[in-house]
Amino acid sequence: MVVKDFDELKALGHDKVAGKIVLFNEIFDKQKAAGGMAFAAYGESVRYRGAGPKAAADLGAAAALVRSVGSADFRLPHTGFSFPAGIPAGAVAAEDAALIAHLAAEGKVRMHLTLTPQKLPDAISYNVIADLKGSEHPEQFVIVSGHLDSWDLGTGAIDDGAGVAVAMETAEILQRLHLRPKRTLRVIAWMDEESGGSGSQAYSKDYSADFIHTVGAIESDSGAAHPLGFAVKMSARASELLRPVLEILQSFGASALLPTSYPPGADIAAMAESGVPALSIMQDGRTYFHYHHTAADTLDKIVPSELRENAAAMAVMGYALANMKDPLPR
Amino acid sequence: MVVKDFDELKALGHDKVAGKIVLFNEIFDKQKAAGGMAFAAYGESVRYRGAGPKAAADLGAAAALVRSVGSADFRLPHTGFSFPAGIPAGAVAAEDAALIAHLAAEGKVRMHLTLTPQKLPDAISYNVIADLKGSEHPEQFVIVSGHLDSWDLGTGAIDDGAGVAVAMETAEILQRLHLRPKRTLRVIAWMDEESGGSGSQAYSKDYSADFIHTVGAIESDSGAAHPLGFAVKMSARASELLRPVLEILQSFGASALLPTSYPPGADIAAMAESGVPALSIMQDGRTYFHYHHTAADTLDKIVPSELRENAAAMAVMGYALANMKDPLPR
Repeated sequence: MVVKDFDELKALGHDKVAGKIVLFNEIFDKQKAAGGMAFAAYGESVRYRGAGPKAAADLGAAAALVRSVGSADFRLPHTGFSFPAGIPAGAVAAEDAALIAHLAAEGKVRMHLTLTPQKLPDAISYNVIADLKGSEHPEQFVIVSGHLDSWDLGTGAIDDGAGVAVAMETAEILQRLHLRPKRTLRVIAWMDEESGGSGSQAYSKDYSADFIHTVGAIESDSGAAHPLGFAVKMSARASELLRPVLEILQSFGASALLPTSYPPGADIAAMAESGVPALSIMQDGRTYFHYHHTAADTLDKIVPSELRENAAAMAVMGYALANMKDPLPR
Repeated sequence: MVVKDFDELKALGHDKVAGKIVLFNEIFDKQKAAGGMAFAAYGESVRYRGAGPKAAADLGAAAALVRSVGSADFRLPHTGFSFPAGIPAGAVAAEDAALIAHLAAEGKVRMHLTLTPQKLPDAISYNVIADLKGSEHPEQFVIVSGHLDSWDLGTGAIDDGAGVAVAMETAEILQRLHLRPKRTLRVIAWMDEESGGSGSQAYSKDYSADFIHTVGAIESDSGAAHPLGFAVKMSARASELLRPVLEILQSFGASALLPTSYPPGADIAAMAESGVPALSIMQDGRTYFHYHHTAADTLDKIVPSELRENAAAMAVMGYALANMKDPLPR
């Protein structure tokens, strides 16, 4: 049973779906991605990976498949989080989704699924946190961060080794330039962004008292391509005060500021919701979803000069937030 | 043991190579390919897939690996022909070759190879041949062709389903336009181009008496991207006589004529060597080696409008050769 979207599935109803394997064949909008709106294209498609299995299970499906969510077709199944649905679920490469859809349009298709993933017991793991103590207000924090975990098909270079490297490099740059900020710069490599966010949840639990003293939180979790600027969730007045920082970022083309209504960055979402000014680097996403959550997310995909631009962007913004006279207004 | 090229292997010598797994880590020249010289880049790299195992075996190597020969890095091992070497041999994805090279530079690397290919007994198969009989000289032939076999990782859409489609479409176009050429148009879908050429060898054996009556042989075996023109092995005088045909091809940008010293097209090589004017469509190769000999060589990689251009190019050239007053001079 091949459907394009949730509406088509719903229209089929329980009688037609029950006992069938459902393939969500939503086609990633490559034109949108190539035009610079890759994350919007991803948002439209990834809903089927996330919520598809549950929607199929609710109508009695035997299993759910999703066309891989990505902008390049190299016969790679893309992995990623799905909400538990109680039925087998998997991704197929775009080419195979197209083939199944073609065959299904001709008549009945029988498939035998062999899915090998296992849910293993939880194991102890950690957020990795380092503080560069502030000279005047060590009790106030600016967080610079990426996440440490990744999907196991590749090595997680773009998602999100790059973000961790950029956050670490922010502290390294300030050290090398002998810049000691007034507030504490806290570098965090978050654990478990990919499968539920238990790392950031633990941080929220253990450090919620610090949220009020956290003057800004930055995450980089969209690869290592050229930084275009920052997506921000903060007051309009706070955004306005960043103008002089954008002047500096403009020198290497990273001066866009995009206010968002949702928290930018999964790991800083709880802080953002509590009122902490939150920022996420917006990378050029045109090739990000070529590799995202695939076996091809490996170090060779990172262009060193662009990684350095990201470190520079986070360092400029992080230092500004840590050193400005007054904290950004909430 | 990681080597860049044959010279480096030779310099190491038997003592250092014996008992080792050799990785040929020759890096495909993507810049050359992107600049329009993809087949030249392929020629430089594919030598290691072809002759690497034998060269390693000659120095006592236990096994040989080759960095996959391709212009896009999506963690795909590329397959293809290697000369028998008597040792296990395989391809690794570019990313994995880079990792092995990195680790080998740090110290000793141990690998356990599990290679699953089998050489099965030969089975009967056939070239597929269809003649559109000439109206005046049915005993004279123009051959239009592609090859029927492909590597089994993908479905062989660009290598060389496209060539077969284009050759068949040539006859179809002439029929539809009610053009009955003077000479016989012979459509051939060659068997076994990929692993030795037994199909074209059988044709040479069975039809060598026809070679003298074959006024031209065309093959398409470089994908389905926009045709730039033809690579030709023929006399300078014969090339000169094609000028009016190039005028027509120029209308859709397919008018390049590149004389070569080697036979253009593996399946028409024997004919070319015997003096038959031989032509091969030169496709734009910028993306061909992204997919060539991989699991991603599937129908979705073919742009229908470009496939049609190829059919038009072969039809124009095939009809011209079949209908010109005198055969091209040899």
